[in-house]
Amino acid sequence: MRILGIDPGLRKTGYGVIDVQQAHIYYVASGTIAIPTDLPLHHRLKHIMDHIREVIEHYKPHESSLEKVFVNTNPETTLLLGQARGAAMCALADTGLDVAEYTALQIKKAVVGRGHARKEQVQIMVQHLLNLNAMPEPDSADALACAITHAHASSLLNKLKELDLDTTHTSKMRGGRLHI
Amino acid sequence: MRILGIDPGLRKTGYGVIDVQQAHIYYVASGTIAIPTDLPLHHRLKHIMDHIREVIEHYKPHESSLEKVFVNTNPETTLLLGQARGAAMCALADTGLDVAEYTALQIKKAVVGRGHARKEQVQIMVQHLLNLNAMPEPDSADALACAITHAHASSLLNKLKELDLDTTHTSKMRGGRLHI
Repeated sequence: MRILGIDPGLRKTGYGVIDVQQAHIYYVASGTIAIPTDLPLHHRLKHIMDHIREVIEHYKPHESSLEKVFVNTNPETTLLLGQARGAAMCALADTGLDVAEYTALQIKKAVVGRGHARKEQVQIMVQHLLNLNAMPEPDSADALACAITHAHASSLLNKLKELDLDTTHTSKMRGGRLHI
Repeated sequence: MRILGIDPGLRKTGYGVIDVQQAHIYYVASGTIAIPTDLPLHHRLKHIMDHIREVIEHYKPHESSLEKVFVNTNPETTLLLGQARGAAMCALADTGLDVAEYTALQIKKAVVGRGHARKEQVQIMVQHLLNLNAMPEPDSADALACAITHAHASSLLNKLKELDLDTTHTSKMRGGRLHI
């Protein structure tokens, strides 16, 4: 099963693709979509949508997950974030993908083990869990973390767990493969 | 020139189509897209996008305009509205349409003549300006009002104004045709 994780934003939208095979996860791809800030809003949203579509066409994920946007105290910022999130969701839903949603708290708990981890701790854990040579950029790391969270939460994985007697109940690294 | 106006919302999204011919405006169509509230968010956003696409395919507008969402004091509500707005914008931008944006204040000023008009006054004025037999529903009326505002603001219309010596500077009804 291939999972696409998205961390939506109107300036930068992160994406991360992982493969889940027999209760192990493997890195496939990740990146950051930089959105030109001098474009009108509808062109910026189309930019997000078009680039997510390209990622979907190229990597053909089976499931997708989206980080729930942090609700800012500034209503204008919240509205802008909501619009970016709407564009990302439309790109995913338009290709028939189901979209699972996870809060930052859930993602940090799933990846780092506690809800109040710092951003760099997420980056470090994502690097370790996926056996990457370098630390991924913040937006890519958040998107990959979102995909990892979905791998944990997915019921399909629970079924795989039942079939794989070697699987442990807690996440830990084993030679670059994560047992979940 | 045909203009599509949209009043986006996650429960109801209004649309309105008007034609502008030689500085007169004519009603073409309007309606309300009701979004099932029991669907997951990404299906609701796709519902908005798909229905706006259908309206575009059917009526083939040349320009579009969107009401700027009222920024609510509740951040969760603002985020939901932002997402609905993002879906509507994506549907418009995805077909290559440019999207003009107007605040509720600008729309009320353009249609009623003052920024602090009540919702019913907008409905009544839209009915009069477009020579409709019945008062349009609130969401359709807001969408039509948004299209009318764009007709006023459009530079193309300013050019038409210059060509039409009979055009008055203020909006008024003349036998069901609005001079702008």
